[in-house]
Amino acid sequence: MSDKLERLERPRVKEMENILGKPFKVLDDGFVRVVDYLGTDSSIVQAARVSYGKGTKKVRQDRGLIRYLMRHRHSTPFEMCEIKLHVRVPMDCWRQWIRHRTANINEYSTRYSVAIDATQTTKPDEWRLQAVKNRQGSEGTIEKVKGQALTKQEAELHDLTRKIYTEKLDMGIAREQARKDLLLSTYTEAYWKIDLHNLLHFLALRMEENAQYEIRQYAHTIGNEIVSKWCPLAWEAFLDYRVNSMVFSKQELEIIKHIASGNMENAINAAKSFDWINIEEGKLKGNLERAELEEKLDVLGLNIPWENLG
Amino acid sequence: MSDKLERLERPRVKEMENILGKPFKVLDDGFVRVVDYLGTDSSIVQAARVSYGKGTKKVRQDRGLIRYLMRHRHSTPFEMCEIKLHVRVPMDCWRQWIRHRTANINEYSTRYSVAIDATQTTKPDEWRLQAVKNRQGSEGTIEKVKGQALTKQEAELHDLTRKIYTEKLDMGIAREQARKDLLLSTYTEAYWKIDLHNLLHFLALRMEENAQYEIRQYAHTIGNEIVSKWCPLAWEAFLDYRVNSMVFSKQELEIIKHIASGNMENAINAAKSFDWINIEEGKLKGNLERAELEEKLDVLGLNIPWENLG
Amino acid sequence: MSDKLERLERPRVKEMENILGKPFKVLDDGFVRVVDYLGTDSSIVQAARVSYGKGTKKVRQDRGLIRYLMRHRHSTPFEMCEIKLHVRVPMDCWRQWIRHRTANINEYSTRYSVAIDATQTTKPDEWRLQAVKNRQGSEGTIEKVKGQALTKQEAELHDLTRKIYTEKLDMGIAREQARKDLLLSTYTEAYWKIDLHNLLHFLALRMEENAQYEIRQYAHTIGNEIVSKWCPLAWEAFLDYRVNSMVFSKQELEIIKHIASGNMENAINAAKSFDWINIEEGKLKGNLERAELEEKLDVLGLNIPWENLG
Amino acid sequence: MSDKLERLERPRVKEMENILGKPFKVLDDGFVRVVDYLGTDSSIVQAARVSYGKGTKKVRQDRGLIRYLMRHRHSTPFEMCEIKLHVRVPMDCWRQWIRHRTANINEYSTRYSVAIDATQTTKPDEWRLQAVKNRQGSEGTIEKVKGQALTKQEAELHDLTRKIYTEKLDMGIAREQARKDLLLSTYTEAYWKIDLHNLLHFLALRMEENAQYEIRQYAHTIGNEIVSKWCPLAWEAFLDYRVNSMVFSKQELEIIKHIASGNMENAINAAKSFDWINIEEGKLKGNLERAELEEKLDVLGLNIPWENLG
Repeated sequence: MSDKLERLERPRVKEMENILGKPFKVLDDGFVRVVDYLGTDSSIVQAARVSYGKGTKKVRQDRGLIRYLMRHRHSTPFEMCEIKLHVRVPMDCWRQWIRHRTANINEYSTRYSVAIDATQTTKPDEWRLQAVKNRQGSEGTIEKVKGQALTKQEAELHDLTRKIYTEKLDMGIAREQARKDLLLSTYTEAYWKIDLHNLLHFLALRMEENAQYEIRQYAHTIGNEIVSKWCPLAWEAFLDYRVNSMVFSKQELEIIKHIASGNMENAINAAKSFDWINIEEGKLKGNLERAELEEKLDVLGLNIPWENLG
Repeated sequence: MSDKLERLERPRVKEMENILGKPFKVLDDGFVRVVDYLGTDSSIVQAARVSYGKGTKKVRQDRGLIRYLMRHRHSTPFEMCEIKLHVRVPMDCWRQWIRHRTANINEYSTRYSVAIDATQTTKPDEWRLQAVKNRQGSEGTIEKVKGQALTKQEAELHDLTRKIYTEKLDMGIAREQARKDLLLSTYTEAYWKIDLHNLLHFLALRMEENAQYEIRQYAHTIGNEIVSKWCPLAWEAFLDYRVNSMVFSKQELEIIKHIASGNMENAINAAKSFDWINIEEGKLKGNLERAELEEKLDVLGLNIPWENLG
Repeated sequence: MSDKLERLERPRVKEMENILGKPFKVLDDGFVRVVDYLGTDSSIVQAARVSYGKGTKKVRQDRGLIRYLMRHRHSTPFEMCEIKLHVRVPMDCWRQWIRHRTANINEYSTRYSVAIDATQTTKPDEWRLQAVKNRQGSEGTIEKVKGQALTKQEAELHDLTRKIYTEKLDMGIAREQARKDLLLSTYTEAYWKIDLHNLLHFLALRMEENAQYEIRQYAHTIGNEIVSKWCPLAWEAFLDYRVNSMVFSKQELEIIKHIASGNMENAINAAKSFDWINIEEGKLKGNLERAELEEKLDVLGLNIPWENLG
Repeated sequence: MSDKLERLERPRVKEMENILGKPFKVLDDGFVRVVDYLGTDSSIVQAARVSYGKGTKKVRQDRGLIRYLMRHRHSTPFEMCEIKLHVRVPMDCWRQWIRHRTANINEYSTRYSVAIDATQTTKPDEWRLQAVKNRQGSEGTIEKVKGQALTKQEAELHDLTRKIYTEKLDMGIAREQARKDLLLSTYTEAYWKIDLHNLLHFLALRMEENAQYEIRQYAHTIGNEIVSKWCPLAWEAFLDYRVNSMVFSKQELEIIKHIASGNMENAINAAKSFDWINIEEGKLKGNLERAELEEKLDVLGLNIPWENLG
């Protein structure tokens, strides 16, 4: 394997060199910018080929190999790429962000320094309503008049909170104590360094429509503006095999088999055996697993076997 | 949420208490045994409900909640269960095992102590042949006569290697140096402690048919003999949503949609647009992504659109 | 090593069974309580002895072995113990807490549920002043009259913020959005699971006097009320070898050698060679490394060689 | 903090560019070479200053800041540097290496490819004897005549093992099975990527004289040939505060205080109270903690209080 130990050049990606340090705006006052990176698509291939040794060197093309690795969840070659970002993000959003434990982090310290004087603000047409079905989500926005009142109230609260914070510091109160009455909407900044595999895992979770709006904006920016340039082949494979893929459970596969064979009766019986079909007073009762399958059948253009049941 | 902070009992699982310390045999001389465990299905539910707070406490049943968490890859509640195993395993197999970095490990030290006097041996009918398609796998076994010769040769090599190792120690050679000429088939032992989420990830990868035979035996034993008793609801959900599930890529979904609508022509055109269809001298050339889809279509009982193409 | 694979009992610590679920109060409205634990001092010994194999089983006593492991930073046996805590803590403090990435966490979700209606409040005599030397710390408290005004202002701000939050929810605003204008002083709750090695690392950093007051209270409670009961031998070794130990750098050791030999001139020359001694207008200029050594010499009762220099 | 978001250049270290890809020889046939790196000393400073915000930007010089961070174990800024190495190392040594779980790894696969045809060999004067005091170490070497015989025997065993391995492959036995009877002295190769903080932790443990000879050679090469060029200020601080530092336990500090005050009687009494002094038949019994202190006192040039006791 190590027959020729040729001198190496650091892999450089021209499109990345062009954006080093450039802030991509997110939300009203946040950003994401690339500080540095290590490796690119070719490094994934290089790492995978260590595993395969000499024998397979020319057999597979790079794109095919990267797609194969992504499809079969061979994650370690993707860990051979690393990126360092500088981000500016509201603390509330950052609370979710740092739940991803596999990154290296240096955050702006409000013990050492005065807190950043910026908060996430909301325009009158941006006040989201509580989603009913998705208990953790939001859907739609409030009427504009109410939104205007809320935006005004928000501005007043932000001003008041900052005023109180500043007054405390002026009186000599310790920064580490004064900051506890800052709002979660206060912006913070951090260096965030992570390998590509774990970054894609972060993006898969945070680009999802169930993710909170705010962090979704960051995830989309990182994905579309940065990863797509940095490792375009890995990014394409990620979209195909993760973001735009669909998983079917054992139960779902069984029902689809019955549908494919044209036997709707068997499909219904299978669903019944999973306890997905319960009729009460002539009406089909709600069932979460069944509802999720129905959505998938819809996407595939397949008929729902039990649609006439209740 | 913390209105009533009642006194707690440690969760105990009767079926686990019955097997504490009991060795489950694996391979010719290996084993897996449970040393201790923390939490069970109810701990997963308990952890998930912290996240949901009071509001949802009675809404979802335990089984439904665990299935929901597994389906949507909410992994943190599964991390609230922990298990400690004592394993005995050939070093070659252990080399793969410890690539899983999220466990705590204490391995038998051949610097401190004389190496365990046992090696993995192979019966005449257990010599596997190199798989052709799967470059990293095996398929079939060698003829018995050849197998007998190999088994005899194996025994002689094991004896010789041990003899040389022992002679070295008798001469006063340091254990840490003498051990370098032990065989990878030598057994080692370790305590291995891991949380349920990461254990299931380990099992998903190592129960798979592409995993090497040896580690697959350990994975199946841990899954079927231990996890199935320890957290039966999580185990069932894991089988349904991971082990026996199927993922369809963006491209595969598009083709299935065409098949579902009965338009085979469009299905073929889609496959062509992905560069999956190339005909050379009247024959359909091999393509890995297409081949994987064909296998899936087969399982679902769907026709392969291009089966008459070449 | 595995000659006798005896049936096992789960290790139980009587003093722990007595406190399972019992909340230990911290700050004005926080707590820490033990939910479950796995292993104890004997498990550390058991794990270490796997490494040593049969040979050394009776040689070292448990206490001696645990002290040896702690002293020589053999950390893996300590990872064989695991504890799960339920904590209630202000979000500002929690922000520091979760920087420790090696724990498993399930936090109360303010997307799913209404935020906990409690904030960390400050008594008139608890308002701390900014430390001058330690840029990130606090020292002393503000005069009582000023403190009373601050406490009153704090209560008003907490009320107002909660009122606005509740109003928003009543208007139908999504919980995930409304929460961004909660204060960092709002309490949150979480299950927090961690192994003993990483817990001790957490405690070493957070019990230190440079750590912020709030998290220090949690660290002391966890250490003194819980770990001291759970693994008393490990706790004692931790206090002796980490908390109450002292590290001397290469430079410090060189100077101490000169002091020990009674040669103050050489000690001063050594300090000069490290650029620790600079005299400006007849006065010894401040130097951080030198100042830290002076503190240590003071503790040891050794004279400061350069105390008459400026 | 983010007032000026200037365009960035990737930090480059000239001395590193000169050695990219260059193999540094280790042992008889191993090597370490740099594949790529991210960041340098200036990146540590940059990361630390995010934490400190604008306020302190010019106050501390880079070297002073890096030393401060190292001294006070502020480890996160060191995580902002990353390095990727290509290593060739005997499997026995690699078994220790990968116990460090915080790195990214892609190892040469003997499932995919024929094992590397090289084993670690030992010259006649390199056969080390088992250490008596340090149960896991070695000391001295065997007489040359015996060493010559061992070297000859080693060569024969290596040849035989390879012959059997090759024969098996020729017969069609699967690589994944044939490899189990390779020797632990067989070389493997890997890409190994790790951040500077975790690399220094690895080096601290593996450069230590108690570490096994083989891995120590790799550690010294990585440290002296690579890290010293990559991040010279961090490397210097690491040597001063970790490698060449000394830790004193609570008990040791107490005894040293008594010695410093000239009161040997109190020093002896303190040692007795720790149960470090036991006299049996007129002889001072061995005690590990006491012996370790005696070594340290020796280094400092301080008298051993109890040296005339037995």
